[in-house]
Amino acid sequence: MSVEPTLEGSFTFAADTPFRLESGGALQPVTLRYAVYGKLREEAILVCHALSGSARVADWWPGMFGAGRPFDTDRECIIGINILGSCYGSTGPTSTDPRTGKPYGPEFPLVTIRDMVRAQARLLQHLGVERLSVVIGGSIGGMQALQWAVDFPEQVGTAVAIGATPLSAMGLALNHLQRQVIQLDPDFRGGRYDEQPARGLGIARSIAMCTYKSAALFHQRFARKPNRNGEDPLAALENRYDIAGYLDYQGGKLVERFDANTYLVISKAMDTFELARGYASEEQALRRIRAKVLLVGISSDWLFPAPDVVALGARLRAAGVDNRYLELVSEHGHDGFLADTHLLAPLLSAVLATEDPKPRRQVWRAAVNYPAGRDV
Amino acid sequence: MSVEPTLEGSFTFAADTPFRLESGGALQPVTLRYAVYGKLREEAILVCHALSGSARVADWWPGMFGAGRPFDTDRECIIGINILGSCYGSTGPTSTDPRTGKPYGPEFPLVTIRDMVRAQARLLQHLGVERLSVVIGGSIGGMQALQWAVDFPEQVGTAVAIGATPLSAMGLALNHLQRQVIQLDPDFRGGRYDEQPARGLGIARSIAMCTYKSAALFHQRFARKPNRNGEDPLAALENRYDIAGYLDYQGGKLVERFDANTYLVISKAMDTFELARGYASEEQALRRIRAKVLLVGISSDWLFPAPDVVALGARLRAAGVDNRYLELVSEHGHDGFLADTHLLAPLLSAVLATEDPKPRRQVWRAAVNYPAGRDV
Repeated sequence: MSVEPTLEGSFTFAADTPFRLESGGALQPVTLRYAVYGKLREEAILVCHALSGSARVADWWPGMFGAGRPFDTDRECIIGINILGSCYGSTGPTSTDPRTGKPYGPEFPLVTIRDMVRAQARLLQHLGVERLSVVIGGSIGGMQALQWAVDFPEQVGTAVAIGATPLSAMGLALNHLQRQVIQLDPDFRGGRYDEQPARGLGIARSIAMCTYKSAALFHQRFARKPNRNGEDPLAALENRYDIAGYLDYQGGKLVERFDANTYLVISKAMDTFELARGYASEEQALRRIRAKVLLVGISSDWLFPAPDVVALGARLRAAGVDNRYLELVSEHGHDGFLADTHLLAPLLSAVLATEDPKPRRQVWRAAVNYPAGRDV
Repeated sequence: MSVEPTLEGSFTFAADTPFRLESGGALQPVTLRYAVYGKLREEAILVCHALSGSARVADWWPGMFGAGRPFDTDRECIIGINILGSCYGSTGPTSTDPRTGKPYGPEFPLVTIRDMVRAQARLLQHLGVERLSVVIGGSIGGMQALQWAVDFPEQVGTAVAIGATPLSAMGLALNHLQRQVIQLDPDFRGGRYDEQPARGLGIARSIAMCTYKSAALFHQRFARKPNRNGEDPLAALENRYDIAGYLDYQGGKLVERFDANTYLVISKAMDTFELARGYASEEQALRRIRAKVLLVGISSDWLFPAPDVVALGARLRAAGVDNRYLELVSEHGHDGFLADTHLLAPLLSAVLATEDPKPRRQVWRAAVNYPAGRDV
């Protein structure tokens, strides 16, 4: 049973005044695609998506929806927003550059997680949402949740970040290599392609899939089996093991639904996420947080290893932030937050519902209303 | 102080009769480049190199040489052989195909670890080496050591395999992606390049570097520092973090000294290594072993994780093989066997010298001499 949004739409702002970006660039105008599940309310749950997601939360995180689960549309208003820079309805490289009448392509400016969050705040203001009882996401979505807690301390009740920290050197390395591969594809043409650089984008996705999954999962599923179509790996250089066939398939699937320049821009935004920027230190940034923070590490995640999440929790604690750490025990690696919602959903529901005896709305009633005049 | 070989040379065989390969192909003739350290003797230590190594062992494993270290040229004869398929003097894709008078290039047949070992045996026979007190190597070199123990049970005293098992699904995945990237480079031209596909080979090497090192090491050395040349990662898509600059540099270094087609062939040989092939089962293969086997796992190795090495040890034990496991505690990842020889050398010396009270030569005197008539 698929859950459909009660409301879907696009909101355009910064038509007159440029929306300035952390990178120094600007966008004018900015459109954000959004989806609302349940009745639109002044208080909502904002669900932030990861690299290739969309505003349609129930399409990519269905296991989180339902009675007794974190996203209960009978009781809560759930909002998904396609991030700035994406290709699912928000302004990004595939959007028309008003200066040229053509898609931005490689001319699209670099955006950051902070830019994404600031743009989301503008949309929520437009929708009349004043408070976010919960901001939640995994991976880049979790980065947004943390950035929300820092930049809009009065609006956020609980920030839930799953498998999300500033990227480690290994993560930066693997993102860099993915971007290099896309740009190596002769069809990339410096980003001014008509046809997608399918091979390069596919291989980049395959590298990413290795970082999203775990060695244990690959072993369980594929081990050293030859490709299921019967290729004999010993007979020819091109003949694959099953894992290689799987990765090629996954790469091809992304090419059909995602844009290469967009991949570059969002992958770069993942790299540049760090809460300290714009503050004297990370601690000063963290000290702004008024939300409760729930960090979730995934036991088999090697892109955002659970110990890195634990370490972030220690820094939050040192900065006086009310935070809690949970570990999702999953062999699915980083993707565990998508693959193992049967474990994640009850875990989150229990914590969100029971950690404080008072009803959530009342707890966060003290939160200041959205400052209408604020430059977001 | 660099250690120089006492003897270096090339040996050519299979001039009249093709050297048949496991893949079904054949080579005629076959040349192997070798280097001998210390006095050539009937009993020697064979040192097998990894993907991009050469016969000149002391050039790439200098910390293992010296009095009180595993390779004591005053007491032992140490032999290095450039593997079949490589580009450091042995027959490989850069060699001239006698049928065409041009380099084999992409026409070079697939070779396996077993083919490499069989070719090495031919060379050792030619050199008058009858027994190998020790066959030792890391990574692909360790695969060769294990293959030696299975295929030539009477010749090997102790086989030392460091960071080596049949490759896991994750390893197969990452090797596949490296090969895909090389082939994506427009300069690759189906393997018939005049100039190296430098970008593709460089990125492949960079992916491999991620698998050779560890996240902890990258964190220590690079963390999230911007590239040392002063690039600001937030200012442009191309601007790198320090880890990315390091990987690009490492990629470029390999391109200067290694051939792309050769990389494909040896990477594939790494994939197809499994001891069971040619036998009814892996256990049947392992039961052939008469050598003592010393497996060394590297604590931070994620290409050949230490638990996989431990598991191989359990299978050896189940097959009745006298084997022992040591763990090299290193943050250098898979490369620990090259980077941390100050830890590895004494560890190995101690085990090789003391695990049996009898002198080594005597222990292995029972080994049958090299069977001259055997088809190796």
